[in-house]
Amino acid sequence: MRTIGYAAESAHAPLTPFHFARRALRADDVAIEILYCGVCHSDLHSVNDDWGMAAFPLVPGHEIVGRVIDTGPEVARYKVGDNVAVGCLVDSCQHCDQCDKGHEQYCRNGFTATYGSPDPVSGEMTHGGYSRHIVVREKFVLSVPDSLDLARAAPILCAGITTFSPLRAWGVGKGSRVGVVGLGGLGHMAVKLAVAMGASVTVISRTDSKQDMAKALGAETLLASSDSGAMQAAAGTFDLIIDTVPVKHDINPYLPLLDIDSTLVLVGQIGPLDEPLTVPMIFGRRRVAGSLIGGLPETQEVLDFCAAHNIHPECEMIRMDEINAAFDKLSAGDISRRYVIDMASLQDQA
Amino acid sequence: MRTIGYAAESAHAPLTPFHFARRALRADDVAIEILYCGVCHSDLHSVNDDWGMAAFPLVPGHEIVGRVIDTGPEVARYKVGDNVAVGCLVDSCQHCDQCDKGHEQYCRNGFTATYGSPDPVSGEMTHGGYSRHIVVREKFVLSVPDSLDLARAAPILCAGITTFSPLRAWGVGKGSRVGVVGLGGLGHMAVKLAVAMGASVTVISRTDSKQDMAKALGAETLLASSDSGAMQAAAGTFDLIIDTVPVKHDINPYLPLLDIDSTLVLVGQIGPLDEPLTVPMIFGRRRVAGSLIGGLPETQEVLDFCAAHNIHPECEMIRMDEINAAFDKLSAGDISRRYVIDMASLQDQA
Repeated sequence: MRTIGYAAESAHAPLTPFHFARRALRADDVAIEILYCGVCHSDLHSVNDDWGMAAFPLVPGHEIVGRVIDTGPEVARYKVGDNVAVGCLVDSCQHCDQCDKGHEQYCRNGFTATYGSPDPVSGEMTHGGYSRHIVVREKFVLSVPDSLDLARAAPILCAGITTFSPLRAWGVGKGSRVGVVGLGGLGHMAVKLAVAMGASVTVISRTDSKQDMAKALGAETLLASSDSGAMQAAAGTFDLIIDTVPVKHDINPYLPLLDIDSTLVLVGQIGPLDEPLTVPMIFGRRRVAGSLIGGLPETQEVLDFCAAHNIHPECEMIRMDEINAAFDKLSAGDISRRYVIDMASLQDQA
Repeated sequence: MRTIGYAAESAHAPLTPFHFARRALRADDVAIEILYCGVCHSDLHSVNDDWGMAAFPLVPGHEIVGRVIDTGPEVARYKVGDNVAVGCLVDSCQHCDQCDKGHEQYCRNGFTATYGSPDPVSGEMTHGGYSRHIVVREKFVLSVPDSLDLARAAPILCAGITTFSPLRAWGVGKGSRVGVVGLGGLGHMAVKLAVAMGASVTVISRTDSKQDMAKALGAETLLASSDSGAMQAAAGTFDLIIDTVPVKHDINPYLPLLDIDSTLVLVGQIGPLDEPLTVPMIFGRRRVAGSLIGGLPETQEVLDFCAAHNIHPECEMIRMDEINAAFDKLSAGDISRRYVIDMASLQDQA
């Protein structure tokens, strides 16, 4: 199937229209017309080749919402016209212990990413959701519940699941005291999800300039990390801190905020951190962990959870040809909502 | 009670004989004649004021084995002649949630350390086990099982409990795959204890020069961190790594050795670590934690466990007046056994 997308031809290049083919349907493939695609900070990292493993031309995008337009003969769960979604994963080995547990993101043999990964069958590089169509193995296609607004659901596929998974893994529930560092695409979803789980949520931000925004999202309060008195008063008061900061930073101010035996989970920065001090870890058996997106069952769960709790990411709709400007704003930081590309705008261009 | 010990009069000063008084017995106090005291790396850190909180004159020592010589009127568990031990803690608030759980090392109100802490009643600085006698609140006195060799039991009180507690907290048992980084006082006890719990234990050391020693302690093998091929082959194969290195170091070589959802526990270094890379944490939900000694119930448990499994630390007996030379050797590193001071040698001097 011929389609059109936006691709970077090389590292740091602006995204430009890119015509390419999606594979012919395999027996268990679903063909999807993409309606909306979220803009994740990872897309920007990939275009800039920040992690040194990008393959060009690169079509980013792994927060995909669309509609089924065709199915392979073995597809049982979806039919033409269904509202579906695709997240960060489009394949995995399906026979290791992690895949058996539905933790495909930790597949022993390496998952296939939605863009920039060699397809395990053809070896061709996968291309992501900044495009009109995508073809994905049924197993990796998710169902979008009817009550979700399609136009605002896309960021659940990465920002949502990336924060939902550690909230679940660390048992957040009624009365849990959750801190969220950073209030961007991931952080604002962490707040909404944790609040819906019954947690008491505090946004931890450099200054209190986002106090109103934090409260509007459901947080009880905002703790300004630049306020040393407030930070000291908050020592030992968190059961879990979700750290969404996507750049190298210093976790030392946050560790003493954890209660004994509690954990700070890194979900944003892929790379080095500043030198950590072990004292808060040792004197309180505190932990620092990482967490990566989520597996297929949990991604379906967060979609269903958002539908049940009427949670939508804060989205700002853009046209496909506004993507480079959106990347510039993302680079500059301080985005407390998620850009979502309306793929109809690409249709106009095609 | 008048007694004699060895004290540092100031930071970095050599230890010299020091005459001082132990407090008159309170109702729940036990007076102990110290027979043996282990030499912990923390003693050296304290004498050097590496942590910036030492009070001088300082009598170090928190691996204490001795015999009861007197008891206060309310003491019920001990009588004159009993073999007893004292570890790193001599008091705590006894009314917070951590004390209620027997985790006095994480007391919300701060525990009283065996040396260099103000006594909560008198405010006087506590003095440690490099001395002939000590007076300790009954609750913080441990019983030494008959089958333990008193001369070799002392290091269980810090090196033993410090490694036993995380092995228990992270559920090590039959078939657990445990890595131990560093083969000094703590590391060699971690190996013995984990082996006795039924774990398959690997010593992780810079080179394979300690291969024989590791195997003699019960480890299955030694993994040389300088052997990149061996390190790659060992990726993802550990359920728990106990990192006993007592100085600033780089944990990045060890994190990929952990299996998914597994933990590296820091028990040695109190201070900064080199910059950690988050990739192994995020791509595998791996964790880094700290752990501090252990509470009273668990310290009794490790003494009983060592008795039941005939585990003794590897000890090298020294005279009290050999302590400064022992400190020099400890400074130089590479000590795979524990110096233990025979307090009878101080008697001779007194």
